[in-house]
Amino acid sequence: MLIVPEREIADLMTREAAFEAVENVFAAMAAGDAYNFPVVREAIGHEDALYGFKGGFDRAGLTLGLKAGGYWPNNLEKRQIINHQSTVFLFDPDTGKAKAMVGGNLLTALRTAAASSVSIKHLARQDASVIGMIGAGHQAAFQLRSALEQRDFEKVIGWNFHPEMLPNIEKVAAEAGLPFEAVQLDGMVEAEVIISITSAFSPSLMADHVSPGTHVACMGTDTKGKQEVETALLAKADVFTDEVAQSISIGEAQHAIAEGLITEADVAQLGAVINGTHAGRSSDEQITLFDGTGVGLQDLAVAASVVELAVAKGIAIEVDF
Amino acid sequence: MLIVPEREIADLMTREAAFEAVENVFAAMAAGDAYNFPVVREAIGHEDALYGFKGGFDRAGLTLGLKAGGYWPNNLEKRQIINHQSTVFLFDPDTGKAKAMVGGNLLTALRTAAASSVSIKHLARQDASVIGMIGAGHQAAFQLRSALEQRDFEKVIGWNFHPEMLPNIEKVAAEAGLPFEAVQLDGMVEAEVIISITSAFSPSLMADHVSPGTHVACMGTDTKGKQEVETALLAKADVFTDEVAQSISIGEAQHAIAEGLITEADVAQLGAVINGTHAGRSSDEQITLFDGTGVGLQDLAVAASVVELAVAKGIAIEVDF
Repeated sequence: MLIVPEREIADLMTREAAFEAVENVFAAMAAGDAYNFPVVREAIGHEDALYGFKGGFDRAGLTLGLKAGGYWPNNLEKRQIINHQSTVFLFDPDTGKAKAMVGGNLLTALRTAAASSVSIKHLARQDASVIGMIGAGHQAAFQLRSALEQRDFEKVIGWNFHPEMLPNIEKVAAEAGLPFEAVQLDGMVEAEVIISITSAFSPSLMADHVSPGTHVACMGTDTKGKQEVETALLAKADVFTDEVAQSISIGEAQHAIAEGLITEADVAQLGAVINGTHAGRSSDEQITLFDGTGVGLQDLAVAASVVELAVAKGIAIEVDF
Repeated sequence: MLIVPEREIADLMTREAAFEAVENVFAAMAAGDAYNFPVVREAIGHEDALYGFKGGFDRAGLTLGLKAGGYWPNNLEKRQIINHQSTVFLFDPDTGKAKAMVGGNLLTALRTAAASSVSIKHLARQDASVIGMIGAGHQAAFQLRSALEQRDFEKVIGWNFHPEMLPNIEKVAAEAGLPFEAVQLDGMVEAEVIISITSAFSPSLMADHVSPGTHVACMGTDTKGKQEVETALLAKADVFTDEVAQSISIGEAQHAIAEGLITEADVAQLGAVINGTHAGRSSDEQITLFDGTGVGLQDLAVAASVVELAVAKGIAIEVDF
């Protein structure tokens, strides 16, 4: 039994490894080699916490297990620890024995950032030069840092409901040597790639804020009721997702589906594009939209990757379990 | 983060501690202080394995977490390890951080045995002297050993589909200094307590094999389609269970419900008897039946108990996670 504590992840895991793990597992999902289990998510009636399990099995990568944990809204204020707390447990698919336990907090940020980056790699125009960020929280910085590696961006623009948080992403742009400009939402027309990463329950980005040929990654909607973009945008975009079942029920597509603007058949798996069974972007004028809902297999994939890295570096703690 | 490996459980955990943990959590469930999460159970399409998660939260005992694992039918033959493999993970309900990891194999046997024993304590006649066992596998020995502590039994009788396995339970009787007699199923009329612990898909124990005043614990049915006793027995018995929702869907009561012989309202929680909000046995002539389906909270309760014992004995492995 191998243990990789949370504190080791930052030095071990790279954006490249997270990207590769997530790209591979999206491909395996679309090929039918990997599937996610039903998600358990419970308001436990203690500390206002949401707790649950996201599990899955990747037959191709032989990765089996779950991420357990959730959201403890009082952690930061009461205990100076982050509110999202999770742990990944991997099992040996040949025997059912517990194989590894891995801190899941940073991994969750990295795998979420990797998902939008994989969508940018496969769906954004090659000549994209301006990237727009909607949202400027902790997660937004991860998103932007990873996205900047996918195209030769020349400029970052950003909007946040609380503008005083924009320095979070301005700093990431500066690290990459890129200029940053704060814009209003309609200023997003300048971007060829837009990442939306908020926890909003009503749309910020409207259809007419998005220019033809843009790729939009909606990364914030993972629950019934949440919404980041106007449904009309989904109606005119080619819509892709990590997992169709989640996209249409708890993802950004839930609203366009409910309004009858699109149907389940209009939502394609990003993995199919990776595998080459879906052509992906059809023209330089087409808007593409990735609905990133977040699946357990992403967590398992990056955890398996970090365990390999920890073993290679002699950092994994071995316990005779 | 505390770790209690499987190999330590046998020396740490006592039947008394398992009994107390399970009795307390049944009581908490009936009082509305503890609840089980939806069960995830998947045929993963690899090694014919069934894998899943049983989670729950006990607000009274502040126990939060899950048992993960399942059934790997080729383990024993291919790898000389047992087919049922499980691990319990406990979380701190105040913060969401992983708190303990505990080997779940022996604990599963002990918590299942504790469940029928709790039912015997609260439902069997005080003057019960003959106990009948239906089933003589690995689990049956645990059941009998624990049950013998609940009443002053004078004799053990047993039946198994494969009679050559009966020495498994004869041995337990001998350890307790009790005579053992192999019987046919209709010989069960002699027993005042009957435990059925098989993986059958059709009834062995018929209504007319059971004398008035007997307590029957059905411990083998945990899946749609499994069945140990004739539905007519449930129709004439007072039926109790660990969790009503499981009892009527995947437990022994599923068949009597499907046939319309009983309704959901006829199935009472054993925890209510423990709490004194249900009178329990109504007369010396009444047949009582406990439908033990097995819930995640039982696993969490015995795991929390064994972690306490391990800490007290200085055996728990501490990992800075």
